[in-house]
Amino acid sequence: MTAAQHIKALTSLLGDKSVVIDAGILASHLEEWRGKFHGHTDLMLTPSSTADTAKAVSYCADNDIKIVPQGGNTGLVGGSLPGLGSYKEILISMKRMNRVLEVDAANMSITAEAGCTVAALQQAAAEKGLLFPLSLASEGSCTVGGIISTNAGGMHVLRYGTTRALTLGIEAALPSGEIYQGLNALRKDNTGYALEQLLVGAEGTLGVITKATFKLVPAEIQKHTLWLAAKDPAGAVSLLAEARKATGERVSVFEIMPHAGLEFVLEHIAGTRSPLEAPSPWYILMEVASCTTDPSLAIALESWLHTALETGQITDGAMATTKQQATDFWRLRESMSEAQKHEGGSIKHDISVPVSSIPAFIKETTLLLEQQFAGCRVTPFGHVGDGNLHFNVMQPAGANTENFLAYWEAMNILVHDQVVKFGGSISAEHGIGSLKKQEQERTKPVAEITAMQAIKNALDPKNIMNPNVLFT
Amino acid sequence: MTAAQHIKALTSLLGDKSVVIDAGILASHLEEWRGKFHGHTDLMLTPSSTADTAKAVSYCADNDIKIVPQGGNTGLVGGSLPGLGSYKEILISMKRMNRVLEVDAANMSITAEAGCTVAALQQAAAEKGLLFPLSLASEGSCTVGGIISTNAGGMHVLRYGTTRALTLGIEAALPSGEIYQGLNALRKDNTGYALEQLLVGAEGTLGVITKATFKLVPAEIQKHTLWLAAKDPAGAVSLLAEARKATGERVSVFEIMPHAGLEFVLEHIAGTRSPLEAPSPWYILMEVASCTTDPSLAIALESWLHTALETGQITDGAMATTKQQATDFWRLRESMSEAQKHEGGSIKHDISVPVSSIPAFIKETTLLLEQQFAGCRVTPFGHVGDGNLHFNVMQPAGANTENFLAYWEAMNILVHDQVVKFGGSISAEHGIGSLKKQEQERTKPVAEITAMQAIKNALDPKNIMNPNVLFT
Repeated sequence: MTAAQHIKALTSLLGDKSVVIDAGILASHLEEWRGKFHGHTDLMLTPSSTADTAKAVSYCADNDIKIVPQGGNTGLVGGSLPGLGSYKEILISMKRMNRVLEVDAANMSITAEAGCTVAALQQAAAEKGLLFPLSLASEGSCTVGGIISTNAGGMHVLRYGTTRALTLGIEAALPSGEIYQGLNALRKDNTGYALEQLLVGAEGTLGVITKATFKLVPAEIQKHTLWLAAKDPAGAVSLLAEARKATGERVSVFEIMPHAGLEFVLEHIAGTRSPLEAPSPWYILMEVASCTTDPSLAIALESWLHTALETGQITDGAMATTKQQATDFWRLRESMSEAQKHEGGSIKHDISVPVSSIPAFIKETTLLLEQQFAGCRVTPFGHVGDGNLHFNVMQPAGANTENFLAYWEAMNILVHDQVVKFGGSISAEHGIGSLKKQEQERTKPVAEITAMQAIKNALDPKNIMNPNVLFT
Repeated sequence: MTAAQHIKALTSLLGDKSVVIDAGILASHLEEWRGKFHGHTDLMLTPSSTADTAKAVSYCADNDIKIVPQGGNTGLVGGSLPGLGSYKEILISMKRMNRVLEVDAANMSITAEAGCTVAALQQAAAEKGLLFPLSLASEGSCTVGGIISTNAGGMHVLRYGTTRALTLGIEAALPSGEIYQGLNALRKDNTGYALEQLLVGAEGTLGVITKATFKLVPAEIQKHTLWLAAKDPAGAVSLLAEARKATGERVSVFEIMPHAGLEFVLEHIAGTRSPLEAPSPWYILMEVASCTTDPSLAIALESWLHTALETGQITDGAMATTKQQATDFWRLRESMSEAQKHEGGSIKHDISVPVSSIPAFIKETTLLLEQQFAGCRVTPFGHVGDGNLHFNVMQPAGANTENFLAYWEAMNILVHDQVVKFGGSISAEHGIGSLKKQEQERTKPVAEITAMQAIKNALDPKNIMNPNVLFT
């Protein structure tokens, strides 16, 4: 069959609205937001129901048409674009299935369609005095299907877990075109293999998510935002353990940043200023929150802060006293990536190691990098409470960006070898996509790749679902 | 090859100590503790290392020998015994691999071998001021491999999650004889399919667990145990939501029991007495705990209790003031099953529904059962905060037990149909095993069974791993 014949058949199967061939509309779905990946396709399906999604997948399976599912297209690893390199796929965008279906307050759960944004989930939960706890930079655009397929993390994982931990049930169109009816709202279900857990983080290779149910938690009513100065990552790690105990497990956010990272922000981002007078080698953004109005939390926190200062665990610290001040603290953290762009090229690693290994990992890896790539500026920051660092390495000041970025692969290899040595992960939260599949193959034990491939073959024997990602 | 030749070959492969043919020793591994299942086999392997476990599995795969892995043999669904019915398997017991390998306090994690008991995990964590939060009746005997393979739940799931939520990494011998090296201690790892999540709850059908790493949490330093009288399950459910909010998410236990259940305990279990003067249709055992010594929690709890009494949400309530009193409250809950034995036959269901559906489910299902099985005594109790009830139906007082138990299948069908209607699970925490595989097949959507079977075939093409469970 020709492309035109397929379009005709799909239009008659799904209706006009679900079949997009307009180049202008297509173009808006084919660019990665940073401009790093450029997709190509002549066809995008936009089903408006689970049944239509399954029909679309079934048609593609029958006709050996490869599919890339797309949510908000906010990913960072080239996992949601068709037609990269020599790959040839069509898009299936879930943007028309974007409704919140139910907030069940007594069950503390929310059910929504795949194209619903995280912001819409947060909003719907908040209206019932509850919290959808995932919190990430792209929350205004990223969707239910996307966060499931990438097991999205973000700022609140420390306390509330990743998308995996929040997912109760999933409905999906399997590569066979059958519908997986796992959309339950259960806390406990031990009836065989956890297929929904397999779909979480599968990057669209095992089916198209159509709906999901997530856990909610009581809304955070009081929130205390702190900016702390720490001597080193080891101090930060022990500080976190003590903060968890002192606050009764109510630390919601615990992020570290090096002094160089803050300096770039202060220099390049208008209107920012350091919350503390003296500089410090490392800073921590910490948030403690509770669903109660109980004033004892603030008192406990102040006393803890006082002790940490006295014992020298922190050298300085500020607790936001106004909402504006808290916003200002957050802006420093949130501008980390943006500020670094002004300093030229940056080679990025999204890695994790056990929390206890963070100090040694940073120290040893920084030394190795500085030896091998003279003048490079190692600027790791991020979710230290999850053992997850955005291990960015910036070009030497004023150096040629292109020359520096040519080290990308060599540097990845050095950093990832260190990650493996420390029992870590080469992709803590962004996924593998098409970007890291070579590194994945290089670093993951063969038995594991073999098992993954066996599962993929079993569920998608024709390899129609997102064939460009995960596997080389 | 003959059985004797296999024994010789396995002895030379693994050593004397790892090959057990002594009938007396075997017998101690072949009885289910309640006497409901009786296993048969002539051979048990007891490897003492991961390498030996993998060699054993590899040998069995090469020679088409079927294997049942066994931990503490405390399961309730006939999933850890070889030779049931016409099945012919050998045992692989992990009892010699029983060490705690590491408690990493800064990472809040614990690593142990598969045969290590939950009690030993709890003990090792406690020595570092931490808590391994799983809490279940069999904790003195059940093991790391067992709790993973059955995704064990228990009393603390409401706050800390099931075994699935606590599992960070797993090492296992796959059916191919290869070693799955997923023993990491990471909070975040998005590098492909969650194979460790697939092994959780797989009931030994996808490999033999050899080691695992679990999350720990700060130890519960203060603990408040309450016994409350509630009018109905609906009241209990809304009470729970309010207690979570009032205590800042520190409810660790929330169990309901009906009046009839308590009466059986008071009648049959020596030394028990009701904590409250007047009887109530339902009772709640609630525990609130914190890793702080902060006195404001007790104050908040007392004020919450006062309000709940004033508004009539509870009709009476007691807060344990001594450790003995707390133990006495717990004993009432823990004697529920034992006490019911004195009343004759009981047909059991381990079900879950969304928490919000608990009231309607109990009401409607009780009515249907009483209509269809005259005089039966419906006595549901358990983990209402997880939507998980042990929905026991007892024989009419003084009736013939054997006649009543003949209704087992018919009653299962009625209850499970209700479960399906309410979007629930026919096995919330005990698993499917060999006991429920027919009901599983009857109630699970075909697409899901097909997908499960495809995964099983992909990873265990010879079907050597625990072939009697999960699938009909």
